[in-house]
Amino acid sequence: MSFNTFGHMFRFTTWGESHGPALGVVVDGCPPGLPISAEVIQRDLDRRKPGQSRFTTQRREDDVVHILSGTFEDENTGGERTTGTPISLMIENTDQRSKDYAEIKDKYRPGHADYTYHQKYGIRDYKGSGRASARETAARVAAGAVARLVVPNVTVRASLVQMGPHKIDYANFDWAEVDNNPFFCADPKAAVLWEGYLDGLRKSGNSVGAVIEVVAEGVPPGWGAPIYGKLSADLASAMMSINAVKAVEIGAGFEAASLIGTENADEMRAGNAGPSFLTNKAGGILGGISNGDPIVCRFAVKPTSSILTPRRSVTTSNEDTEVVTKGRHDPCVGIRAVPIGEAMMACVLADHFLRHRAQTGRDGGVGY
Amino acid sequence: MSFNTFGHMFRFTTWGESHGPALGVVVDGCPPGLPISAEVIQRDLDRRKPGQSRFTTQRREDDVVHILSGTFEDENTGGERTTGTPISLMIENTDQRSKDYAEIKDKYRPGHADYTYHQKYGIRDYKGSGRASARETAARVAAGAVARLVVPNVTVRASLVQMGPHKIDYANFDWAEVDNNPFFCADPKAAVLWEGYLDGLRKSGNSVGAVIEVVAEGVPPGWGAPIYGKLSADLASAMMSINAVKAVEIGAGFEAASLIGTENADEMRAGNAGPSFLTNKAGGILGGISNGDPIVCRFAVKPTSSILTPRRSVTTSNEDTEVVTKGRHDPCVGIRAVPIGEAMMACVLADHFLRHRAQTGRDGGVGY
Amino acid sequence: MSFNTFGHMFRFTTWGESHGPALGVVVDGCPPGLPISAEVIQRDLDRRKPGQSRFTTQRREDDVVHILSGTFEDENTGGERTTGTPISLMIENTDQRSKDYAEIKDKYRPGHADYTYHQKYGIRDYKGSGRASARETAARVAAGAVARLVVPNVTVRASLVQMGPHKIDYANFDWAEVDNNPFFCADPKAAVLWEGYLDGLRKSGNSVGAVIEVVAEGVPPGWGAPIYGKLSADLASAMMSINAVKAVEIGAGFEAASLIGTENADEMRAGNAGPSFLTNKAGGILGGISNGDPIVCRFAVKPTSSILTPRRSVTTSNEDTEVVTKGRHDPCVGIRAVPIGEAMMACVLADHFLRHRAQTGRDGGVGY
Amino acid sequence: MSFNTFGHMFRFTTWGESHGPALGVVVDGCPPGLPISAEVIQRDLDRRKPGQSRFTTQRREDDVVHILSGTFEDENTGGERTTGTPISLMIENTDQRSKDYAEIKDKYRPGHADYTYHQKYGIRDYKGSGRASARETAARVAAGAVARLVVPNVTVRASLVQMGPHKIDYANFDWAEVDNNPFFCADPKAAVLWEGYLDGLRKSGNSVGAVIEVVAEGVPPGWGAPIYGKLSADLASAMMSINAVKAVEIGAGFEAASLIGTENADEMRAGNAGPSFLTNKAGGILGGISNGDPIVCRFAVKPTSSILTPRRSVTTSNEDTEVVTKGRHDPCVGIRAVPIGEAMMACVLADHFLRHRAQTGRDGGVGY
Repeated sequence: MSFNTFGHMFRFTTWGESHGPALGVVVDGCPPGLPISAEVIQRDLDRRKPGQSRFTTQRREDDVVHILSGTFEDENTGGERTTGTPISLMIENTDQRSKDYAEIKDKYRPGHADYTYHQKYGIRDYKGSGRASARETAARVAAGAVARLVVPNVTVRASLVQMGPHKIDYANFDWAEVDNNPFFCADPKAAVLWEGYLDGLRKSGNSVGAVIEVVAEGVPPGWGAPIYGKLSADLASAMMSINAVKAVEIGAGFEAASLIGTENADEMRAGNAGPSFLTNKAGGILGGISNGDPIVCRFAVKPTSSILTPRRSVTTSNEDTEVVTKGRHDPCVGIRAVPIGEAMMACVLADHFLRHRAQTGRDGGVGY
Repeated sequence: MSFNTFGHMFRFTTWGESHGPALGVVVDGCPPGLPISAEVIQRDLDRRKPGQSRFTTQRREDDVVHILSGTFEDENTGGERTTGTPISLMIENTDQRSKDYAEIKDKYRPGHADYTYHQKYGIRDYKGSGRASARETAARVAAGAVARLVVPNVTVRASLVQMGPHKIDYANFDWAEVDNNPFFCADPKAAVLWEGYLDGLRKSGNSVGAVIEVVAEGVPPGWGAPIYGKLSADLASAMMSINAVKAVEIGAGFEAASLIGTENADEMRAGNAGPSFLTNKAGGILGGISNGDPIVCRFAVKPTSSILTPRRSVTTSNEDTEVVTKGRHDPCVGIRAVPIGEAMMACVLADHFLRHRAQTGRDGGVGY
Repeated sequence: MSFNTFGHMFRFTTWGESHGPALGVVVDGCPPGLPISAEVIQRDLDRRKPGQSRFTTQRREDDVVHILSGTFEDENTGGERTTGTPISLMIENTDQRSKDYAEIKDKYRPGHADYTYHQKYGIRDYKGSGRASARETAARVAAGAVARLVVPNVTVRASLVQMGPHKIDYANFDWAEVDNNPFFCADPKAAVLWEGYLDGLRKSGNSVGAVIEVVAEGVPPGWGAPIYGKLSADLASAMMSINAVKAVEIGAGFEAASLIGTENADEMRAGNAGPSFLTNKAGGILGGISNGDPIVCRFAVKPTSSILTPRRSVTTSNEDTEVVTKGRHDPCVGIRAVPIGEAMMACVLADHFLRHRAQTGRDGGVGY
Repeated sequence: MSFNTFGHMFRFTTWGESHGPALGVVVDGCPPGLPISAEVIQRDLDRRKPGQSRFTTQRREDDVVHILSGTFEDENTGGERTTGTPISLMIENTDQRSKDYAEIKDKYRPGHADYTYHQKYGIRDYKGSGRASARETAARVAAGAVARLVVPNVTVRASLVQMGPHKIDYANFDWAEVDNNPFFCADPKAAVLWEGYLDGLRKSGNSVGAVIEVVAEGVPPGWGAPIYGKLSADLASAMMSINAVKAVEIGAGFEAASLIGTENADEMRAGNAGPSFLTNKAGGILGGISNGDPIVCRFAVKPTSSILTPRRSVTTSNEDTEVVTKGRHDPCVGIRAVPIGEAMMACVLADHFLRHRAQTGRDGGVGY
């Protein structure tokens, strides 16, 4: 039923709340024999973890990952390898401050899931939003680090490409810049401008939305499947499942609506390594199946709903009230969505790689 | 694995190619006792079927639906009711013209799934694109008609809101206009302008993209689920699984990225019928769960790739070539995507209604 | 939710009632490029179809299969091949006699699903038991014929090994005899005895149960998976899903309960072709994973509940009554369960082959 | 793909090895608002835990359960309630003795999954059998304790009914006796006899098989579903997924094969509380759907393969060898399977309750 499980062959199940003792993920279906270590997972988690700059929540969580199952010592290397059985990863919560939440206990915060959780379940974990907390995404990032091991020839990278109304200039795009600024932004000039912009918002007790672009290179043609198993459909689901995401697009995306047929369809030319495409409006996906070009996916993150500015709202007893969310929150939650988007892309690709191999017995396309 | 199956509790499996004898869908998990008839399904199919105006493919298909299973006579009404067992619906293909496809047998049409199907499967059904044909969507519309019976208090409607660069003016928006023009457009003025615009494109052997907006009213709070079962994630997957769709958004969607927190979060006020929202930037979904407001989803359809204008491409033997797609094609395949988008919305909601009822024993929220 | 779907990677969905226009199955996930024809499917269907001897129902159904999708012409052979897309198979019902059912319309037949369907759905298709009809199994046999194509090196065969209290003598066991008697019995001497026994039961208006043994040879070590994906667990589910089946066992089965450790665990010896087992108490499965030995599964079918002998029962208005089921029924429904058991075994193996290939990239074990 | 996940609406995923730091389970789809505590789960775990008599392994594990997520304080009671989000339960391993396994590192133990795991994965966790360890079953028992909360009106109980060739006498059957002997046996006289029998086997370095009967009372008519979602099919899968189980039967089970129609079909009589059955050969299930009678399921557990008697086997280098399994093992692993069988029954019923409620909106049958 996939309430808390994502994927088919490579699948993971996450659990845990923001203010419980821990959160975690169980990864199932991982191929056996892959070298794995806590370090390689930690590396991805460290990029997502809070408190790394003044632009992310000041909650302090080290997000140390513990591998609880699914690996075994490799006699040759002294390291660990996956065994093909479920990999259970746990991250302890260390900086819960439940008192921060006392004053929103009886109020629905606008833009949050407070109201809908209450309506659905008749019970609301007001300490940190329960499963709607951004902390759940740590579990995804851990799963994504495992997924990368499954598709080692694929490079998955992401960049913030828009903050509020301010878009990057693709002429400046350089993957090497992503880790040189607090925004995971591949355009260093945009990053400088955003710094001032976001400082202003933060100080005024406000927040802002963002767009993230995730790109996977090295995906061979043939991954994905028609109809409801389209690579694009699974990516859409993957990205939209991230908290605060409201939009997803592949390749030209919404822009494709404005194009005419001669502009949109990527023309092809023959080559020694097989056919290639002259453009990539398709974002690497045709008919739901990868075409060998980079997979390009963008998604929009809404502004953080937890802001210091008072907002009109309602109590759990259906009376008018005002809400000011103190706590510790990201002024642009889209920033930390960058490694999360990468993780989800990696998970979708690992899953589709295995599904493709199941049906065809091949790792990629038929070749020539 | 959901290659050709969509949904969990209310789930359907589609089958069939454009140029085989028939196509169809098996709907499983439908509640028993619902009044059903071929007519009610036919009504939705007739809106999608080709050849209804000069703006859609001139292929002639009556798309007559046959109910093969899952219903039983209702002694009281003389009609049929669902029995709770699988409902098999079949639509025969009557206007196949395989000769149309002879000349693209050894060529990959740019923008089509020809190349990726060949790469994936090593075999390509060049007669009408196999499963990548728009005819598969008839099966979805049939399933959607059943889904509407499952959620009778929900109204699902859609409109074309953008054709190429031309957007509608929401000030003119009137659902009653949707069936008064060949574009399923709720803005009658836009429809008039589009008519000339699309005629020009069609005559020049070109095509164009579009954006469709689907709105569901009457959804109570509480449907949907956290994390990977988010209503928004399933809608994203549903819409992106439609052929030619490249982007999906909920509520404010990509626009949310440009907003600041005070603009985006919908404020709430108390009321006799419970809390209500002053705006609907959320598109009716918070934390993946419906909030009682209309569910608003938009998706972009790329321009039809089959155009009369010659395009550079490659043969199946990896040699440069040119392709002109004669056949009979929609100059704006987005038009017929309107009833398809409605169908997918209805299916997602029927599924989530049943899933919600399973977990909570309620049809909607907890009330007050 | 698998109400009417079986399998994961190789999966099929069946539909149809006994007294509707047709029944069928959609097979999804089948590898592409496999030679396929209606004839090869028909061959299996013909073994299951009714009316082939006085020991099976006299209903006349030719059970002609129609392939509606999922195949494409093979230029080299002139035959058809699978394309990797859903294979829709349909069988028309031609010999419905609804009048036979008029008198049980308002009565629950003991041993049938009449009462439970009514309780579950509040609506009962009294014309031929709806989905509880043995006709559903034709769809499984068709799916099984496709499954055999997926695992061509595996031989799946079955035999009736017990009718009522009369068991076969395994000393007489000869697969070649299975098609030489009306019982699919590998022991020709037992078959002779059963003939008189079943004639007597049939004439007295009674029926009897049976046990079927299904054996798969050629399964390499490594198929299956730990815990909930055990080959044995999926076989148990597969066989128990067949109408009238009440028990399933693997290898020594219930007999294993009576054994001590030294008797039960199959000892191993080294060999040129790798290790081999000296006995096969395990039925070819250890820890849920195939060990290279023949997979051996037995299941029990209860006596047909539709008998001419009057039985005490209840009306749909909760009044005492008597039921005599006239219709046309099998005196030993276990006979026709033989090809059905084979089909389900083939489907489970095809599914696990693909799942194993997905996770490991290998078709079988690691070898030596 | 259900490698390590069981169930659909009420579903759980287990993880962990015998010799890792911990094992656990994530329960998803649990209804919200159910009172829950570690104590109620611990009670079931304590019945399964090792070292409670000389007839179970002397490994010392307290099996203390930790609830890591999915619950929230209940202001009214001061206790905890389920929130509807995933319930993560963890049990730490405290008594690993890896040295016990050094000598079987390079040998396949007959009757174990050593050989098949190696063949499948190319890597074997020889320290305690990895996922094939009986410790995995602790996770199921924890999940089962949660499942019982979901169906509070259902009573699930089990008894050992056969040890080796020695069956209980149902004339002595008394549920109250189950916890009065070390075998979970409802026949106190059989328990006395078994004590001597098992002591003898244990001292001689041997082991023995067993049969467990699980009974669920209080299940209303209507749970379950036709065809592949049959209650009986899911029970068969559930029980067969338990380590060492080789056979499953419902109601009369294999005995049904020996019966004639007049003996097997349970007759019905009208009554004030609706129809009732005069016998329960069906084991409470007709057509895969509960009929209101007790659900009766039996399964056979093979003798423990780890025995002190030397057995012929093969090394991982394919050379002949002998194996004596020292370690600490249960002489009759069937004993501890009693609470495990109960847990699996509870999980299947919780799942089907929710699935039934989803499709029909009712908790049980239609009534009268």
